[in-house]
Amino acid sequence: MDFKRIFHTLGVVLCFEAMLLILPSICAIIYDEVAIYSFIASIVLCLVCGIPLYLIKPKKNEMYSKEGFVVVALSWILMSLFGALPFVFSEAIPNFIHAFFETASGFTTTGASILKDVEVIPKSVLFWRSFTHWIGGMGVLVFLMAILSLSGGSNLHLMRAESTGPAVNKLVPKVKSSAKILYGIYIGLSLILLVLLLAGGMSFFEAITHMFGTAGTGGFGIKNSSLADYSPYLQIVITVFMALFGIDFSVYYLLLLGKFKLMLKSDEVKAYIGIILVSTLIISINCVNLFENIWASLRHSAFQVSSIMTTTGFSTVDFDKFPELSKTILVLLMFIGACAGSTGGGIKVSRILIYLKSIKKEISIAAHPKLTKKIQMSGRIVEHETVRSVNVFMAAYIVVFVLSLLAISIDNLDFTTNFTAVAATLNNIGPGLAKVGPTSNFSVYSDFSILVLTFDMLIGRLEVFPILILFSPYTWKK
Amino acid sequence: MDFKRIFHTLGVVLCFEAMLLILPSICAIIYDEVAIYSFIASIVLCLVCGIPLYLIKPKKNEMYSKEGFVVVALSWILMSLFGALPFVFSEAIPNFIHAFFETASGFTTTGASILKDVEVIPKSVLFWRSFTHWIGGMGVLVFLMAILSLSGGSNLHLMRAESTGPAVNKLVPKVKSSAKILYGIYIGLSLILLVLLLAGGMSFFEAITHMFGTAGTGGFGIKNSSLADYSPYLQIVITVFMALFGIDFSVYYLLLLGKFKLMLKSDEVKAYIGIILVSTLIISINCVNLFENIWASLRHSAFQVSSIMTTTGFSTVDFDKFPELSKTILVLLMFIGACAGSTGGGIKVSRILIYLKSIKKEISIAAHPKLTKKIQMSGRIVEHETVRSVNVFMAAYIVVFVLSLLAISIDNLDFTTNFTAVAATLNNIGPGLAKVGPTSNFSVYSDFSILVLTFDMLIGRLEVFPILILFSPYTWKK
Repeated sequence: MDFKRIFHTLGVVLCFEAMLLILPSICAIIYDEVAIYSFIASIVLCLVCGIPLYLIKPKKNEMYSKEGFVVVALSWILMSLFGALPFVFSEAIPNFIHAFFETASGFTTTGASILKDVEVIPKSVLFWRSFTHWIGGMGVLVFLMAILSLSGGSNLHLMRAESTGPAVNKLVPKVKSSAKILYGIYIGLSLILLVLLLAGGMSFFEAITHMFGTAGTGGFGIKNSSLADYSPYLQIVITVFMALFGIDFSVYYLLLLGKFKLMLKSDEVKAYIGIILVSTLIISINCVNLFENIWASLRHSAFQVSSIMTTTGFSTVDFDKFPELSKTILVLLMFIGACAGSTGGGIKVSRILIYLKSIKKEISIAAHPKLTKKIQMSGRIVEHETVRSVNVFMAAYIVVFVLSLLAISIDNLDFTTNFTAVAATLNNIGPGLAKVGPTSNFSVYSDFSILVLTFDMLIGRLEVFPILILFSPYTWKK
Repeated sequence: MDFKRIFHTLGVVLCFEAMLLILPSICAIIYDEVAIYSFIASIVLCLVCGIPLYLIKPKKNEMYSKEGFVVVALSWILMSLFGALPFVFSEAIPNFIHAFFETASGFTTTGASILKDVEVIPKSVLFWRSFTHWIGGMGVLVFLMAILSLSGGSNLHLMRAESTGPAVNKLVPKVKSSAKILYGIYIGLSLILLVLLLAGGMSFFEAITHMFGTAGTGGFGIKNSSLADYSPYLQIVITVFMALFGIDFSVYYLLLLGKFKLMLKSDEVKAYIGIILVSTLIISINCVNLFENIWASLRHSAFQVSSIMTTTGFSTVDFDKFPELSKTILVLLMFIGACAGSTGGGIKVSRILIYLKSIKKEISIAAHPKLTKKIQMSGRIVEHETVRSVNVFMAAYIVVFVLSLLAISIDNLDFTTNFTAVAATLNNIGPGLAKVGPTSNFSVYSDFSILVLTFDMLIGRLEVFPILILFSPYTWKK
């Protein structure tokens, strides 16, 4: 294990976080909030810890796979720990564990909150809270790769550990160029959304915080009612953009290159859109009595489906009051999640597809044992290694889910609350059902459970293995 | 597809069922119950349909894999349909769908009931209800193999489709001899249990019905309070025997052969006993306030754990009133289930172990990519094919679970009820939590949901693929 390299990279990450904290500081100055001192103190602390680490120079140029995992896992934990400081210092969230939860919820684009009332929080702190979504959405280390060469070597291991989906999609041979393209698309889409939100009558502050939450598929709002009080136009814009940010970004790259045929070939995107449409249809029919007419039902259903499927977590209605069929569909969408290579969380549509195709293959083998069939996706054969990685991901995912459910059940809340709390954090959604539903918050849990759910968010965002590898004794054995 | 062979075997199965129905008929004569006419009518119907099918002679001697699956799936469905007749004719359960549910629940050793009051049901009908557990426990076709040669050919495909666990364990090279040994052990253990129950003061009727329910890990009782009103001695005997019937029967074969060393090597049995002990300990501490003292808590916890882990479903207390941690442990035990090659249901301990070991392997590979490591169980390398079958089983299992959950959520009951209803039927347990808890029954659901849950029981007992293959278009394509 190249400890020097790990320390050095963590130093870079902390200095980067200090830089990020400048933005909410400016916000505090604009709104003339005392929270400015909290941000300055946080920046100083980041630099005090970050610079000495940065100065440790790594020995060799090559980075091994396990170092990639360890660096990514530690970076995200550290970012969340230091990012929690402004919440504590400004006394918006005095309990450090709660603040850690809230920040991890931000960076992992979960959007689960322990705040009872967000409207009393200083604007600059709300800005920081939403800004973490945008940073976490496309990946912190991917961003660093895009703007500076992280100590020269190949950074594919970092990208693999941080990006989402069963197989890393590099777009172009060079990792650095891929990172730049991804961030280019991300910024472009974000700006379009910002303009559309401003056009709908949002103030700049409202527009930018909601843009952060939508682009990162995060879900932190600035109102206790989330998106309920905004106009249908704004709700529709956000519905569409949540869905757009849940699509594999390589599809947008193909769009930019004009390769429309290749673009339309993606089985994952087709399934993703199909699931959104079918779920919206069923829920809007199932919930029609709850709304004034079918169009309102359709609009609210589409919003909720797009929000949950992309693991954003915004809401326009309290879907905990939906009939059980609709609620069950939403719970299942929580698990499916968005496309691989998007800012969304969950298991990912491509993994689900590979999973389903492996069942289909098994049945056809049982019927015709002499047939040798390979699993295909988007017209290409899926490598054995990818199928294996999907299976082992699912196994680890289920084990983490089960252990978390056990751990938080100690608090003696009901099964629906516990089950959806783990589902909502591990899949980076935000709200669950019952006591953690859209109108409630996670402060019903003890500090121990909050810590468990915080790690679930990190485990979910990094797709299980980086955190497991960090805590595995194998990693640290010579 | 050799249709003649399929029809012939189904004929054998129906004639066999007619034979089985003689036992409850005798019971009806002893207790002088009018239900005797229901049994006679059912026997006649079985023979009227069974004999013509039996007379169809199969063409060739060899049976293909897919025919094995189809025969097993159809046999279980047919047994349940015809086994439901006495319930309908005697008006114990006038609704045929409910009666089909109850019978499938019997044969699949689930023990989920739609009866509100079992104590008003004629004794001979209760006898039949419990007897189906005992028949289903070790497998209907395995039994037929033991007593007659099913049209001569190799019957390994049948055994594979009907027996439990990721890989079929033949004990001895000949399938017929294996089936005989298995049934020998099964009958032996059942008789010991019967004697111990009689020694505890049960009447012969009580003893034999509870023996059927315990040996088959079924769970149908003859009292509304299940096992609550019996003496601690009887509760302890049943606790121990439920656990014994959840152990891989090949372990008993090794015991009979005097191969103690090999016996103690089984990772699965060690894990199984370990899980029972640890769960019992945690639940007994967690529930200590619900009982008069720690010993009572220990006894009831051990009973509930043994009952749920082996997927029997008897209860001595209403575990729906346990604290959430204990309830969550019980729900997880529902999924783990018993050992492969036992009469118990669930995912099976060996599959869970292979699943966990595949995660461990993945983590160690990430840490040391040059290391090539194979998954081992009980000191032997697990074949790639077995790991693959575990993965695809889990995939199909999850898909069935999810689709069933969606289907029954249409009835608009709460999430805990729906989730545990599917868990309790797919894993062949019996009772769930909330509205399908130990003191409730499944009649809260609509006929459509009852049908879904009936198929879940069959799918669970046959470990998913036989039923999927039966309904797959691939199977019926030339």
